[in-house]
Parts: sequence; structure tokens; C-alpha cells
Amino acid sequence: MGRWEPGARERMAAAALELYAERGFEQTTAADIAERAGVTERTFFRHFADKREVLFDGTSAFERTVLDGIAAAPPDASPLEAAVAGMRAVVPLLEQERGREFAARRAAIIAANTSLYERELLKMATLGLAGAQALRDRGAPEAAARLAAETAVTVFRVAFARWLGDGRGTGLDKCIRNAFADLRKLVAAPAQ
Amino acid sequence: MGRWEPGARERMAAAALELYAERGFEQTTAADIAERAGVTERTFFRHFADKREVLFDGTSAFERTVLDGIAAAPPDASPLEAAVAGMRAVVPLLEQERGREFAARRAAIIAANTSLYERELLKMATLGLAGAQALRDRGAPEAAARLAAETAVTVFRVAFARWLGDGRGTGLDKCIRNAFADLRKLVAAPAQ
Repeated sequence: MGRWEPGARERMAAAALELYAERGFEQTTAADIAERAGVTERTFFRHFADKREVLFDGTSAFERTVLDGIAAAPPDASPLEAAVAGMRAVVPLLEQERGREFAARRAAIIAANTSLYERELLKMATLGLAGAQALRDRGAPEAAARLAAETAVTVFRVAFARWLGDGRGTGLDKCIRNAFADLRKLVAAPAQ
Repeated sequence: MGRWEPGARERMAAAALELYAERGFEQTTAADIAERAGVTERTFFRHFADKREVLFDGTSAFERTVLDGIAAAPPDASPLEAAVAGMRAVVPLLEQERGREFAARRAAIIAANTSLYERELLKMATLGLAGAQALRDRGAPEAAARLAAETAVTVFRVAFARWLGDGRGTGLDKCIRNAFADLRKLVAAPAQ
């Protein structure tokens, strides 16, 4: 097998998710993943630091996309609108590039393992802090920046869960816009 | 030393925070904490499963207080108002019982250690899910429950950070009410 394996990375990611779902994350080794993907173990470690990295491979692209999305929001967007625009910017990455099936499998594996779930929470918390900085960089006042960034992450997390749980195939972008609209209603809601 | 040591638990908690701040969490042992608090190691382990538990000792009381606060919110409170009322219910626990100094020291230790920080994030995520259930139990619609609970946790986290960072001694309850008011403004904000 040559050094250049078209699709090897994607095959390894798919194989890893299959194996984690079948046997559990703890019970799967890098060698198992390599074998299932039809590559050598050395190839696996050329692409991923360890078996956990397969699940968090997209973290830096995800964060960069959100931050670029915040920076690219219209200058007159409010801090919360800019933060939500940043979260919406990841839709192509998650929906078109990797797909809902991949996201659902990944989420199920993460939910079943506390240390993976903690890592995922850390990723989102880090994103909230970075998003707050991106909002400050575009002039958001201090009191608004962190709250807007964290709220946008919350809207995204709720929308993401709805996207995965939705039986009618509602797109992720629509789920984010719906959750944001729901937040507006919640905040505006008078007493029931 | 008798079996009943008045204040021993509090002394151990204070000693642990001192030592974690002085030497770092990893470098401190249960024996060190017991010695500093003037109790035996056996006494330490009668109170805490391990040295990490000293920092998360209040978790179940914290969660129970939030859930009781949600249940006790006025029947006509909106889901988000009820969720925020739940978060406000913990103020006596954090501010009067343990105090801002304790909270600030604890937060600094947790921020310095990734595995402690992940544990703290897990605690808040778990609280968000439990809060959503408490809101459903009082009749909140599904679309509102999770979003309201998670948003209230977000408001609380931002308020808590402001409380610790505030040099003017603003109380925690006031910080929560201010952050909630800021959220209303953020959501209502037209383009800048």
C-alpha cells in the first residue's frame, strides 16, 4: 500500500465508528480500526495520535469555522446574532461533509463514555471562550461578549440534539434557526 | 480524637483548598490534607471518597437545590423564569454557607487542571438535563424545556464568573439577575 491512500482517512473514521458502536470504545484498538479499514497500523498512526482523536479529528476545523463565521457576520449584526451566525457556519462541515449519520453515530458513542463526553463538553466550553474573544474583536462590549457566545453555543447544542433526534429530516441550519427563534420566545415569554 | 469532630469536614475542605493552591492538585495527597486539618487519614476517608471529592462535595446538594427551586417557582412563571429561579436558589448555599473566597479558590484550582475542569463541566451539563426534566414536570413544552434549562445554566455560569471577578463585591444573586437582564437585552437587540 502506497503512502498516498485516497480516502484512507475517511475509511478509518468510518471503521472506527462502526467498531466503537459494535464493541464499545474501550474494547477497540487502533489495530482493529486499521484492519477494518484495510490499512496498516502505521498508516493509522500517521493520521491520528490515538483512537480518541478519530472522534475529535474535526475539532480545530470546527472552531476555526465558527470564529471565521463570527468575524464574517455583517458589521451591524448584534453580538448574539453574530455568535449564532458563527455556529450556523459549521453546517456545511457537519451536514454536507460528514453527514447526519456520522454525527448521530459519533454522538451515541460519546454519550456512552464519560471521558469522551467530558472531552466533548470541554471542546464546547473552549469554543464558547474563543467565540467571546471573536465577539470582542468585532467590538462587542465585555458584558455582552461572553454571554452571547455561550448562549449561541447553548442554542447550537440544543439544535444539534434536535437535528439528530428529528425523524422528519429537518436540516441542521433550520434546527439552529428554530432553536434561536425558540430562545427569543422563551426570553420574551410573559408568565404562562 | 473522638468519632464526632465538630467542624472537621469544613477544616478538611479548607486545608485541601490551601494545599491545592500551594502545591497543585496532583501533588497533594489525602494524608497531606488530613495532617493540615489536624485529623487522621482515616477520618479523611470517612468523609471523602478521594481528594477530588473534596472539590465536588456539594454537587448533589447543589443539584437538589436547583431542582427544588424550579419546582417551587410560581406556577405562572415561564419555563426560563422557573429555570433561572432554580439557579438563584443556590445563592445561600454558595454565598452564605461557603462564601465567595471558597468559591474563588475552588474555581482557580479547577481551572488549572483539565480533568477537574471536565468534571465541573459534566456537573453543569448533568444539571442542565435534570433541570429540563424538572421543567417538563411542571408542564413546560418539550421545545422549551431543554433550551430553558440550558440557557439558565449558561446565565448562571456567566454570572458566577462575574461574581468571582467582580471587585465591587456585587452579590451572586444580583450577578444572576444582571446576567439574565443582559440576556434579555441581547436577544431583543436590534442590529447595532
